Amino acid sequence: MVTEPPPEPPPEPQRFKRRIPEGDDRERAVCQRCGFIAYDNPRLIVGAVCLWEDRILLARRAIAPRQGFWTVPAGFMENGETPAQGAAREVREEALAEVEIGPLIGLYPLAPIDQVHMIYRARMTSPRHAPGPESLETALVAWADIPWDELAFPSIHWALGDHARTAGSTAFQPGTTPPDWVPTPLR
Amino acid sequence: MVTEPPPEPPPEPQRFKRRIPEGDDRERAVCQRCGFIAYDNPRLIVGAVCLWEDRILLARRAIAPRQGFWTVPAGFMENGETPAQGAAREVREEALAEVEIGPLIGLYPLAPIDQVHMIYRARMTSPRHAPGPESLETALVAWADIPWDELAFPSIHWALGDHARTAGSTAFQPGTTPPDWVPTPLR
Ligand SMILES: [Zn+2]
Ligand SMILES: [Zn+2]
Repeated sequence: MVTEPPPEPPPEPQRFKRRIPEGDDRERAVCQRCGFIAYDNPRLIVGAVCLWEDRILLARRAIAPRQGFWTVPAGFMENGETPAQGAAREVREEALAEVEIGPLIGLYPLAPIDQVHMIYRARMTSPRHAPGPESLETALVAWADIPWDELAFPSIHWALGDHARTAGSTAFQPGTTPPDWVPTPLR
Repeated sequence: MVTEPPPEPPPEPQRFKRRIPEGDDRERAVCQRCGFIAYDNPRLIVGAVCLWEDRILLARRAIAPRQGFWTVPAGFMENGETPAQGAAREVREEALAEVEIGPLIGLYPLAPIDQVHMIYRARMTSPRHAPGPESLETALVAWADIPWDELAFPSIHWALGDHARTAGSTAFQPGTTPPDWVPTPLR
């Protein structure tokens, strides 16, 4: 799970200038040499609250941001996959676990940072789990043992709450970002 | 509503080559001159089935793709907005109508074209509507008068069906893409 895009050198400032392309109605980063328009649209983060019996699969992050903090498996959705497929892929990559994806627990817009987080409920198909390259450790924890003060991102907190609120049901609207949320720098 | 990104000159092929950047695990388009990585992530389309009493707001497209066909207001989500705000903006831009956004009717992944369509139910706050610059005309139509054979995009069809299926309720999971859907060229 990453709340910031992967490391990326910014477009050279002298090459990309912000202007409104013809037929568009807002500024885009346009290459001054060839006219290439670097559309920058909101990014989707997909992940899952994964259950084995009534324990929840958490992973401790091996990488920035929020190295050492706990998360549910989640990360940037990639081209060519559905959000559910992306969530299952992140579970596989970060916690070496296999899941069946269930209902959408939460759909959390983070408008100030141009992200939308989509977190599903998932059922592990076996209790096996282990840290992938982006995780220090993984654990199946009971609700009472969730390390609330060591969660990596606000949306993980919200998703765990929305999971509890909707547990056992498949007929509910996904939870959303609390209206009073404001972004704070994470490290 | 556009199912293809707005007109955009492709990156000059000799400049951008696909390779796996350091620390990444899949190919990206990387500029051969400066190393700029053009991350190309799935795009979000946001829109709304807008109701005045029990009639539905449709707009006839003035632009490609699917010029002349009918749609519900929808388009690319922009940075700095939530999906619901984006949907309300598209209603304003394409049909000059004001709405209150309600539940998420459908979340339709179109993995082969790297899009996710999110369609909400919305209530018009007045019966006023009129074509914006991207529409030829707008209309409030009864269910029986929906021009099913002249709808612009499959996701519009699905969203109208999922709206009918969930009408009057706010406790349901959003509908999804039919498993047998395959992309077909639209013009
Ligand atoms: Zn250029
Ligand atoms: Zn370059």
